[in-house]
Amino acid sequence: MRLSELSRVSGVPTPTIKFYLREGLLSPGLRTHTNQAQYDQGHLHRLRLIRALLDIGGLSLAAIGDVLAALAASGTGPGRLLRTARQPALGTTPGQADGPATSEVLALVQRQGWRVSPDDPAIEAAAEVLDALRRLGRHDFAERLDAYARAADTAAASDVEALDRCADIAGMEEALIIGNVLGERLLAALRRLAQTHHLRERVPLGRGTTLRN
Amino acid sequence: MRLSELSRVSGVPTPTIKFYLREGLLSPGLRTHTNQAQYDQGHLHRLRLIRALLDIGGLSLAAIGDVLAALAASGTGPGRLLRTARQPALGTTPGQADGPATSEVLALVQRQGWRVSPDDPAIEAAAEVLDALRRLGRHDFAERLDAYARAADTAAASDVEALDRCADIAGMEEALIIGNVLGERLLAALRRLAQTHHLRERVPLGRGTTLRN
Repeated sequence: MRLSELSRVSGVPTPTIKFYLREGLLSPGLRTHTNQAQYDQGHLHRLRLIRALLDIGGLSLAAIGDVLAALAASGTGPGRLLRTARQPALGTTPGQADGPATSEVLALVQRQGWRVSPDDPAIEAAAEVLDALRRLGRHDFAERLDAYARAADTAAASDVEALDRCADIAGMEEALIIGNVLGERLLAALRRLAQTHHLRERVPLGRGTTLRN
Repeated sequence: MRLSELSRVSGVPTPTIKFYLREGLLSPGLRTHTNQAQYDQGHLHRLRLIRALLDIGGLSLAAIGDVLAALAASGTGPGRLLRTARQPALGTTPGQADGPATSEVLALVQRQGWRVSPDDPAIEAAAEVLDALRRLGRHDFAERLDAYARAADTAAASDVEALDRCADIAGMEEALIIGNVLGERLLAALRRLAQTHHLRERVPLGRGTTLRN
């Protein structure tokens, strides 16, 4: 299809697609004339991926570039999947955590029986959040780590189970990236719904107070 | 304390604090001389909140302004908490979902027995993510919604339980905001760890392949 049709089908304006082409986020089409190129289903899929990571995942264009570069990287072994699960651009922030919080997360990992490396960047990322929560006076999260870990494990087991349907490692890797970024938004929205429900159940209401709206 | 000490204790540079003061994110200190003001523990706490929402929550300054404005809004009834749980700036995106995905989320809410309003913005937010996943060929999420809902419920029950320790509605509201934004980052990091564990357990390894690193 031509650029105009790619724009129509994807709903992404032509100048935006041209920008992604210039930035290298989207690979060039097959040149058919001097100033005309053909695009295929692969381009359409990639365009949808970029928009989903941007609009719903809230990733920056730089972070999306990192994600796409990782997808394009060579290597087809299952080790790639583990590297993907840990990718910093996918939300794990560079660690600045000090000792105690890191030890707490390591202890949690042990209690959960999770087979992960002690230098997994997600451990530092979790510790950093714990530290920030504590600086804000929220000491309760340290005790609630196990509830969060159970929640995380339920979602992650489903994420990994779903990879069985993928044809190859590259497909699994894309599924993992999409699932991580968009799945996080899904989990966040569902958590809000569940919070609203539990708030209605637990928070004592004053007489005559309704929780409507 | 003076501005220089507030900067030292919080680790936030003086020009940045002055910027937050100009933008109204931080309330003015108590003026003691023509060009000198005193700041208290409230300022320090607010400054830590801004930095946590910014650095760890990844919120924009505009979104942080919305969150802080909501915290300052009048009203002390429990209805405030429900509005807080739904606040768009806290990650639920404006809905663009069409019919089918919304019905799927509504059916999920019913299966879970969650008492939430059918026009809760988090329903549209979840539906929008489902739609985007489907456009990317990830139809499996529709079947995995219940696993995600269980995960969300586990975390949310813990979130709401923790509110019991707060002294008043204002304290609960801040706890909910901090818990939502930072708790999401914590949940994300723990999900990566759990994924790594489940990947190691499930993905078949080729002969001689190690998953180390």
